[in-house]
Amino acid sequence: MSTTIDVPESSNTKGKTILLGNPARPGGWKKGIAIMDFILRLGAVAAALGAAATMGMSDQTLPFFTQFFQFEASYDSFTTFQFFVISMALVAGYLVLSLPFSIVAIIRPHATGPRLFLIILDTVFLTLATSSGASAAAIVYLAHNGNQDTNWLAICNQFGDFCAQTSGAVVSSFVTVVILVVLIVMSALALGRH
Amino acid sequence: MSTTIDVPESSNTKGKTILLGNPARPGGWKKGIAIMDFILRLGAVAAALGAAATMGMSDQTLPFFTQFFQFEASYDSFTTFQFFVISMALVAGYLVLSLPFSIVAIIRPHATGPRLFLIILDTVFLTLATSSGASAAAIVYLAHNGNQDTNWLAICNQFGDFCAQTSGAVVSSFVTVVILVVLIVMSALALGRH
Repeated sequence: MSTTIDVPESSNTKGKTILLGNPARPGGWKKGIAIMDFILRLGAVAAALGAAATMGMSDQTLPFFTQFFQFEASYDSFTTFQFFVISMALVAGYLVLSLPFSIVAIIRPHATGPRLFLIILDTVFLTLATSSGASAAAIVYLAHNGNQDTNWLAICNQFGDFCAQTSGAVVSSFVTVVILVVLIVMSALALGRH
Repeated sequence: MSTTIDVPESSNTKGKTILLGNPARPGGWKKGIAIMDFILRLGAVAAALGAAATMGMSDQTLPFFTQFFQFEASYDSFTTFQFFVISMALVAGYLVLSLPFSIVAIIRPHATGPRLFLIILDTVFLTLATSSGASAAAIVYLAHNGNQDTNWLAICNQFGDFCAQTSGAVVSSFVTVVILVVLIVMSALALGRH
């Protein structure tokens, strides 16, 4: 157990398990996948929290600069952005709660229970994160480019900071989506090979 | 093999495999899951094709009725709807191509290769289907309700048929998403339990 807790030497131990793991102790690479799972999950928490916070903050900062215009821009103006904040906060909360199960998978690399639990819930929250990110991206695209046929004018000329913040939040949510896809693929590989 | 080809009796044989499968021939329920996988995949093909076709047809039918208005509504007017048609057609194509692998999983219920292949690609195309459905839903919502703060007016008063068609396409894409989530969960369960 001491080798896995010793974090600075983790790259060495991981190399060893990949090289020597299969003949010596079968399933050693599963522990490596579980450790990668934990690290990626921490990154996904950061990305999801960043997305929710960036989108939520676009409400607080901008009214000070936009009182001179006819209308003010905040995430409250768009139902889609409200959905984005709520669902990305939900995804971040789920990812934090899933960390203990990821630790269980590190301690017991051969147990399929925690991996099954994680892959199923990961899939559900992948759908939530993707839908909120994609719908917000559609609105951000409209805000940048507008639509000639329906007379929806681009608002990013007036609300540059607002558009930059919401675009950043969308990018951050896509980072969460990519990490969740990688997590599901890794869990599936660990479940499939014995 | 004759019991699986005999389709009208499939409900009886499935009940038998669930009741007797585990002691008599272990993994008999895996064949049941593989058959369910194949049937659900056919449903997902229909839903994805329906979504792409409904959205694509909204271009051809409406200009005849909207020449009297100032502007015409078609799926070409919205970049998001173009993305929707292309990506749902891609998803439908993938689902058709995945049917042979699902048949392999029926014939060899214990092989993990086809299941791993399917669960990984299912996850990727789940992301594609969810993103196109959610972004189209965001535009459909704007078309129905408009947005006061940005002076984007609702267009569904004038283009009722167009809105109905695009809404139907979005609903059909969400059916595809739900089926794909169920497929991934079933594959994960089949991979995890031996």
